[in-house]
Amino acid sequence: MSEFPEFQNLLNRTPEERDQEFQRHGRLKHLIFGSQLTTELLDRLCRSADMIRRLARDREGNAELRNLLPNRRAMLYFTQPSTRTFLSFMAACQILGITCNEVRDPKMSSEVKRESRTDSVRMFSSYFDVIIMRSQMANLAEVCAYMMNDLEGTDRRSVPIINAGAGSDEHPTQALLDMYTILRTFDFDESSMSRPSRLGSLQKEYPDLTTGAANKVYAFCGDIKRGRTVRSLATVLSQYRNVTMYFITPPHDQLRIDDDLRSLLETAGVTVKEFESLDEVDDGQPILEKIDCLYMTRIQREHNSDATEAEIASIDLSPFKLSVERVAKMKSFAPILHPFPRDSIVGEIPTEIDSDPRAMYFRQARNGMWARAALLVHLFDVNEALMDAHVRLFPAAVRSASSPSRR
Amino acid sequence: MSEFPEFQNLLNRTPEERDQEFQRHGRLKHLIFGSQLTTELLDRLCRSADMIRRLARDREGNAELRNLLPNRRAMLYFTQPSTRTFLSFMAACQILGITCNEVRDPKMSSEVKRESRTDSVRMFSSYFDVIIMRSQMANLAEVCAYMMNDLEGTDRRSVPIINAGAGSDEHPTQALLDMYTILRTFDFDESSMSRPSRLGSLQKEYPDLTTGAANKVYAFCGDIKRGRTVRSLATVLSQYRNVTMYFITPPHDQLRIDDDLRSLLETAGVTVKEFESLDEVDDGQPILEKIDCLYMTRIQREHNSDATEAEIASIDLSPFKLSVERVAKMKSFAPILHPFPRDSIVGEIPTEIDSDPRAMYFRQARNGMWARAALLVHLFDVNEALMDAHVRLFPAAVRSASSPSRR
Amino acid sequence: MSEFPEFQNLLNRTPEERDQEFQRHGRLKHLIFGSQLTTELLDRLCRSADMIRRLARDREGNAELRNLLPNRRAMLYFTQPSTRTFLSFMAACQILGITCNEVRDPKMSSEVKRESRTDSVRMFSSYFDVIIMRSQMANLAEVCAYMMNDLEGTDRRSVPIINAGAGSDEHPTQALLDMYTILRTFDFDESSMSRPSRLGSLQKEYPDLTTGAANKVYAFCGDIKRGRTVRSLATVLSQYRNVTMYFITPPHDQLRIDDDLRSLLETAGVTVKEFESLDEVDDGQPILEKIDCLYMTRIQREHNSDATEAEIASIDLSPFKLSVERVAKMKSFAPILHPFPRDSIVGEIPTEIDSDPRAMYFRQARNGMWARAALLVHLFDVNEALMDAHVRLFPAAVRSASSPSRR
Repeated sequence: MSEFPEFQNLLNRTPEERDQEFQRHGRLKHLIFGSQLTTELLDRLCRSADMIRRLARDREGNAELRNLLPNRRAMLYFTQPSTRTFLSFMAACQILGITCNEVRDPKMSSEVKRESRTDSVRMFSSYFDVIIMRSQMANLAEVCAYMMNDLEGTDRRSVPIINAGAGSDEHPTQALLDMYTILRTFDFDESSMSRPSRLGSLQKEYPDLTTGAANKVYAFCGDIKRGRTVRSLATVLSQYRNVTMYFITPPHDQLRIDDDLRSLLETAGVTVKEFESLDEVDDGQPILEKIDCLYMTRIQREHNSDATEAEIASIDLSPFKLSVERVAKMKSFAPILHPFPRDSIVGEIPTEIDSDPRAMYFRQARNGMWARAALLVHLFDVNEALMDAHVRLFPAAVRSASSPSRR
Repeated sequence: MSEFPEFQNLLNRTPEERDQEFQRHGRLKHLIFGSQLTTELLDRLCRSADMIRRLARDREGNAELRNLLPNRRAMLYFTQPSTRTFLSFMAACQILGITCNEVRDPKMSSEVKRESRTDSVRMFSSYFDVIIMRSQMANLAEVCAYMMNDLEGTDRRSVPIINAGAGSDEHPTQALLDMYTILRTFDFDESSMSRPSRLGSLQKEYPDLTTGAANKVYAFCGDIKRGRTVRSLATVLSQYRNVTMYFITPPHDQLRIDDDLRSLLETAGVTVKEFESLDEVDDGQPILEKIDCLYMTRIQREHNSDATEAEIASIDLSPFKLSVERVAKMKSFAPILHPFPRDSIVGEIPTEIDSDPRAMYFRQARNGMWARAALLVHLFDVNEALMDAHVRLFPAAVRSASSPSRR
Repeated sequence: MSEFPEFQNLLNRTPEERDQEFQRHGRLKHLIFGSQLTTELLDRLCRSADMIRRLARDREGNAELRNLLPNRRAMLYFTQPSTRTFLSFMAACQILGITCNEVRDPKMSSEVKRESRTDSVRMFSSYFDVIIMRSQMANLAEVCAYMMNDLEGTDRRSVPIINAGAGSDEHPTQALLDMYTILRTFDFDESSMSRPSRLGSLQKEYPDLTTGAANKVYAFCGDIKRGRTVRSLATVLSQYRNVTMYFITPPHDQLRIDDDLRSLLETAGVTVKEFESLDEVDDGQPILEKIDCLYMTRIQREHNSDATEAEIASIDLSPFKLSVERVAKMKSFAPILHPFPRDSIVGEIPTEIDSDPRAMYFRQARNGMWARAALLVHLFDVNEALMDAHVRLFPAAVRSASSPSRR
């Protein structure tokens, strides 16, 4: 943490104190931590994402969307590569009329001339209206948000900072899109007026089924410890009532859930269970039959030391891979998620699964675009203009879309 | 071909069967092969390109063009570098209001995380509305088009694929822009109402001259075997009546036309002749005096093995280079084309030729922009909106532009 | 200079003769040299920059600006890296509705296929409407401008060239933005109707103070010889009456002002004085108290030979660094400028200075965007449309903004 000595006092505070700095009057100024995603904010962002998705279906709706933020220019500062997050943010900006700019190669930047990172980011804030950043440095986005707050406090130019992945443990917009996918799936089309309700028919088979993220069993399979998306998503899900989480990992310390996250979840009231195969049994019933939502992950070999590499290479990964047979045992509605990319050599999700209706991972990727666009609408405070456009084009849909039916 | 085992059955079919999959009701769904460019389709695309070119001349026409596809986002996936093709597609998209995104550096993409190429392309299709791709892998564009067809068949999101150069033998949009340049040149301004006809005066000197691509002598000079543009263009030209082709190449197996292409052309009715110098004679007349269109190429040294490099280095290339004297012998209307870049060290076209009215290579490059824009208009099915805009701004030009005078 | 033998005659002429080729009827065709920035042109560009800045403040003004050049596409050809200049030009283009394209990696371009640089640039001119270029080759931008003039002379397509940094001594748009910052600062809000005049109150403390760039003491501190921005700016400033310049440099031949620039400035009537510390005295008074404008620079280590590196490393740089104490001695209005990036290790401007009202370097960076947008407005000849938009939105501001009060 000594990289930013002038911000050390701010960085030493509790998570709650730090979260507090990034919002104002219940609205985000910056998105730095997953913990900023309260259930209330998630509901609002998901409603916006729904409206954006619906408007984007036709030419006229697209024109309305592009008219929301045509006067804004974004900087995507991605010194840690990530094609998917990068392109998804690009598309989200373009949908809203925001012009995109990028700096990706750190060698291209002025850092070779010994410019400080904070000078670089302040330079970006001179030319652009939002900075979306992904970095190996754990605290960079947070520190930049403090710098922006300082500038704002002295009436100088300040812009929102979005953390698009920092260091090893924070990736709040991934948690946002995962939650959007979960909430959309567990809405069971209740908010749609144009289609018949699915919930009624599902309840014949699963009598206890409810809409929303509460009262569910979530399973996370694969590389739990090093997958920052799992950490962010599990933390956000822990806010909901009556949640059980299964962590299904190979027996290796670099992959299993760490004690820190486990106790955080249990303190929040989550029932946490660990397994070493997708075929295990819980309370006399195969876990595959009990899971309401299955989150698959890739073993992140790029983080391995040579020793760990050898150890993990010797593990049989077949208990952590999906197959047609395993998917057949799952509940008929249970979404299969994956933050992608998937490993085409290990094959934790073989391509045969792709055509199964439970395979939500491609839709999840596309949801990233809608969820990130919703975040930008929120940060630039154009929700009302979005709602106006939506009412104009879909007058009938309004009652349902604005009803708080998600939890 | 074993790179895509799951698509092997599809790849094993005849060219005609494969072409068939990429169109529907006489309209292209994807452009993968040069053989999809029928004379009828070329006529339609060239008429669109003419309209786009005319509209792009002024501010009002440009505004009409940008209003054709403002709701579309393109992905330019160029893992094989090509500045010219890339920039020309960028400009074509921008003319039509399409927003561009790019992935060029394969190291930047998720392939380092062992994502399959098809997963990458499906991810692009989640965020973007057309994928323009150039790759070292011969079948990648074709396979991606099959994948899109599969998705469409099961009511999932599917987008058009454009092959912007694949492996060593296909570059259909280069053939398209070459044909646009040839058809524009051999139109002799017949379709223009604003200028006097050139054909009449040219016929005093060349009594047999006709408009259109038929009844012509085409010469290809330089690196025939390894220039995929020559292969694509010659194949497309073989559809026209009464065509003669001269292939003027150094005496080396890596440069001469291969038997495969030769027999394909002859089967289509083309008269094929080979020469080893631009100064040779055919039927008692210098070939330079008989050529109606001269297509120059660069010796592609980057494909050479060390042995071939040494052999080719020992060849005298002067018989394959233009000079002011040689150009002076050519017909007054005969266009000189070159797919560019030209080799500034070999100098197959010295810069002194650039100001000759027959030097069409810079205009040819600019035509790439109009022809590619016309292709995008076709794929997104906005021809009618283009024609409407053209009628609005150029009411007098309509009769000629829509008359089928090109062949 | 033998890199462009065909242009050698043109390159051998006097600076005045060469400048003459890049303008027509008092308007720039290309911006290649700082010497093209006459005081009259600077006044016009600064007035435009003011209007653009004011319009960019709100959504409606932004829409007017984006409507000035939506039919134009720019190529940013930056083979010499420069994040700041690059992004500033991108933002300037985007403000005016210009679509941006870029070529930055020379390995990506056709040069690997032995295409000449002039062919590359002519290719860009086929697809794009202005070429903004930065290169290690001192004469490339100049030569490209000659090529464009040739094309124009023979009725072929020609586009404006902007030199965004060439070789070691020209960076005219940096001089433009520096001058815009200086003229804005020394306007003392006289042209603003909405705020009370600052000049009157300042004159109580500094009785000789006048508006404009004339009658001032400019100090340049740090790396004078190798900083092309200093050379360009000092030359432009030498056009104004009664100017004194202090050059404060470490005692090393690679850093001190060279005789060439010194005699050029003295011939133009500038009083030139050299110092070896910010704490020196001139005419019995500390120079810090006499400076009206302080231009700090970074020691450009990347240009050092190993020997020079060792010599410079042994120099004590503390006399050339700002501190709170030194700034406290400066005049209350005197702007501190820096072309950026600043060196975070040497610390020629410590971050404690950033909140001082005299610290203008971040505003200077942002001014680069307005000044470059003004240049584009000038080159594309849409000043009148800009003035019309400004009158529509700010009817009251017109009289002051159009009054020639800057000198």
